Amino acid sequence: MPQTFSLPLQDNDQLAAVDLGSNSFHMVVARYTMGQLRVIDRLRETVRMADGLDERGGLSAEAHARAIDCLARFGQRIRDLPDSRVRALATNTVRQLALPRNFLVPAEAALGHGIEVVAGREEARLIYLGVAHAQPPKPGTRRLVIDIGGGSTEFIIGSGLQTLERESVQVGCIASTRRFFAGGKLSRKRWNSALTEVTAELQQFAKPYRALGWQEAIGSSGTAKAIGEICAAMKLSKGAITAEALPQMRDRLLQAERIEDIDLPGLSKDRQPIIAGGVLVMEAAFQALGIERMMVSKAAMREGILYDMLGRRGGDDPREQSVAIMMQRYGVDPAQAERVEQTAQRLFDQVADAWQLEADDARVLSWAARLHEIGLTVAHSQYHVHGAYLLEYSDIAGFSRQEQLMLAALVRTHRRGIPRTAFDALPDRRIPAAKHIAALLRLAVLLHRAHDAEPIPTLELMAQNEELHLLLDKEWIDARPLLRADLIGEANDMPGLGIAFKPFVT
Amino acid sequence: MPQTFSLPLQDNDQLAAVDLGSNSFHMVVARYTMGQLRVIDRLRETVRMADGLDERGGLSAEAHARAIDCLARFGQRIRDLPDSRVRALATNTVRQLALPRNFLVPAEAALGHGIEVVAGREEARLIYLGVAHAQPPKPGTRRLVIDIGGGSTEFIIGSGLQTLERESVQVGCIASTRRFFAGGKLSRKRWNSALTEVTAELQQFAKPYRALGWQEAIGSSGTAKAIGEICAAMKLSKGAITAEALPQMRDRLLQAERIEDIDLPGLSKDRQPIIAGGVLVMEAAFQALGIERMMVSKAAMREGILYDMLGRRGGDDPREQSVAIMMQRYGVDPAQAERVEQTAQRLFDQVADAWQLEADDARVLSWAARLHEIGLTVAHSQYHVHGAYLLEYSDIAGFSRQEQLMLAALVRTHRRGIPRTAFDALPDRRIPAAKHIAALLRLAVLLHRAHDAEPIPTLELMAQNEELHLLLDKEWIDARPLLRADLIGEANDMPGLGIAFKPFVT
Repeated sequence: MPQTFSLPLQDNDQLAAVDLGSNSFHMVVARYTMGQLRVIDRLRETVRMADGLDERGGLSAEAHARAIDCLARFGQRIRDLPDSRVRALATNTVRQLALPRNFLVPAEAALGHGIEVVAGREEARLIYLGVAHAQPPKPGTRRLVIDIGGGSTEFIIGSGLQTLERESVQVGCIASTRRFFAGGKLSRKRWNSALTEVTAELQQFAKPYRALGWQEAIGSSGTAKAIGEICAAMKLSKGAITAEALPQMRDRLLQAERIEDIDLPGLSKDRQPIIAGGVLVMEAAFQALGIERMMVSKAAMREGILYDMLGRRGGDDPREQSVAIMMQRYGVDPAQAERVEQTAQRLFDQVADAWQLEADDARVLSWAARLHEIGLTVAHSQYHVHGAYLLEYSDIAGFSRQEQLMLAALVRTHRRGIPRTAFDALPDRRIPAAKHIAALLRLAVLLHRAHDAEPIPTLELMAQNEELHLLLDKEWIDARPLLRADLIGEANDMPGLGIAFKPFVT
Repeated sequence: MPQTFSLPLQDNDQLAAVDLGSNSFHMVVARYTMGQLRVIDRLRETVRMADGLDERGGLSAEAHARAIDCLARFGQRIRDLPDSRVRALATNTVRQLALPRNFLVPAEAALGHGIEVVAGREEARLIYLGVAHAQPPKPGTRRLVIDIGGGSTEFIIGSGLQTLERESVQVGCIASTRRFFAGGKLSRKRWNSALTEVTAELQQFAKPYRALGWQEAIGSSGTAKAIGEICAAMKLSKGAITAEALPQMRDRLLQAERIEDIDLPGLSKDRQPIIAGGVLVMEAAFQALGIERMMVSKAAMREGILYDMLGRRGGDDPREQSVAIMMQRYGVDPAQAERVEQTAQRLFDQVADAWQLEADDARVLSWAARLHEIGLTVAHSQYHVHGAYLLEYSDIAGFSRQEQLMLAALVRTHRRGIPRTAFDALPDRRIPAAKHIAALLRLAVLLHRAHDAEPIPTLELMAQNEELHLLLDKEWIDARPLLRADLIGEANDMPGLGIAFKPFVT
């Protein structure tokens, strides 16, 4: 039943993934060739955005400027790529901003492409995907992947290309350095009390992780890479991070009384200001999870984004599976969902050109159609509001924040009056399409209100600017007085979307 | 596992149920004798509260005064009954009030007992219970019960004492008369257009109702009673309402051009101003559901409340089953829920006297303990907020609005910071107990944070006014540095409940 919307890639098409991390921004450009991706370009800049984040979710002018300047440079490289082949994702620092739009609007202008925000657990999924593609795990084994970022740390257990557990915790190398070693002061006492706090954070999920278990542990971040290099330089290992090496390295680190005095072999100048928080989180992770040995991977979220794009296009879109899981979890009637989806797509096809709707929009409409009744599990009364709540706040694999907010807005407005603020959370560039898709979903739901299998004849729908004309066969509509009353009601409601709805009887 | 909290009734104990309906208020007093209820007193007053409701949820001073005066009279009769044997429920008109507290506070003072608001579907359950006890259905048959109230109409299909389907629709005899026959004007044209609208409202659930089917239909409201009496007086039936009689009666009604001129045999003066809306809703129900014949029952929600009280006390509390259903629906780990519940009850027992907590409070604490993790199904992040949302908005059989809001507030505050407004939605009289129960739940959750089976030793807990002292064994707590850190954190958070928490090591 679920339609797939693969836009197949041509050989030599380029794809780009941008990762706006809390410490550094990364971009990787790959060429598609014979079904494979070949990385042709990598860029990395230390933007240290988390450094500019204050407690109220404000961003310093300096950090803002560093980020925009970096994105302008990245943007130059991918200026000629179509939007559909660029995916730029922002993580923890942007998640923490009180007014993300103040950053995202100039950031998108600088990059020349849209930027989405991903939740921590979705970030975790993409990290795992990147690592798993770079170093395929042995079949039948489980792998623990830890990615210590600037603002958050992700913990994933997976098998093959699938994740089994994903957690994102609000401790990162920059955030922890600022929080526990304020003023740049180091001491054994500060370290121990910080270690207790961070370990307590990890304790929340340590039990089920240890119960599930893994055969190998991999660290995938700049922090893991730096710690591995220090271990090798100190001759504590050949590049792996081990339970014996870490305390020795930490003792060496704590010989310094101030961060600027940290002297560790193999440590880059660039990494020095944030290594203390990084080692702290790593030590807490080793303790809480009982890790003995961890290998370091160079792959990370950016590679995961690329492989995810490939999957989305190749008919292996993880979002399809997530929608199916949500339908099942909330007991959606699949027959009704399919009827509404099919009618919605038939309406979509008739107005897509006039409203300049694209394949992505068709996909969003389908998902909203399949999910519009999930709120019924909570209560019939105001079920569109409950469904929107679940879509906004659920952890849904494969979807960015913006994509979830889009689905939430569509489900929120699929029946009854349309609140003025219903689309406010969406990026401005998506609002016109969102309102058009909402109008189509409303009509499809209304046409199938009887929840029966009676087929809907092909109805002629025409869009002209913000007018929507529906032509109805007289005999057919005369036999359906309730539908007629609903369509008249819809003509009153749809102006809430900025659309004049005009049903005509021919 | 689930504890039951039956406070057995003594022979000759009196129980009272009060129904604050949109048209009339009812009170029924029963005596408990040999396991049975015997009704010993009935009061009914036509308060017509819905008449005073405006579109913005305001209540006219006249309607307010009529309601309070009536409750004062009812209150005189049950002044000496303990709170635990009186249950007063308000329905649709109070549900619609913008500021329900402005009515409920003086109403409770007048009645001398607490008043709860019930959602439409819970009202439906209680109506069915009342009718089923008064006229037990034949085993293995299904029954449709329709209750046309002043502001809403409830539709229930049930079998035995259990409901299978429950719906509450915002059409009632007063509301429909005001909406469709404004200014008291009647005409066939107005009637037909009103009938289309109301039938459309019922169409939403008509399909599944007809698919499930029933062997007998029963009408349980004053409206049904009045229509049955008119049918009999017009010699259209012997008291039943039939698909043939209704149109004849409606034609006779429409001979009047104004409501005050309605002349129907057997119609009381009291019922005349609202019979048009009542007949309209009944005709729409017959059409939408294809009803051929309906018997009239004298039992209604008030009797349902009495039998529900008996069940709550006799270990057959419908809320126990509802909590179990919620746990299952949202995939709660039952072992963790049970651990938290048992520890919470052990803490409760130590402070119940000092804090004057009662058996009802113990029950609420248990349910909150069993449900505190339901929000995890949505997302781990902020799961206490999601759980509170589900408890506030879900349709949970057996619970009043206030009881659901209490559980929502407890789950909302069971971890992390306590918002200033967390208890604002509760009736003032319940807030002190709610905060005390919240403190106990927080401690129980914190003690079981590891989610493992390690037993918690008996910890000594003492309450003195708004101070809570916890004595900890030194050796035990020294071996648990994370728990110690959590308890220190709790001492910072609990003042948000107005409670000073003081853990001591002995």
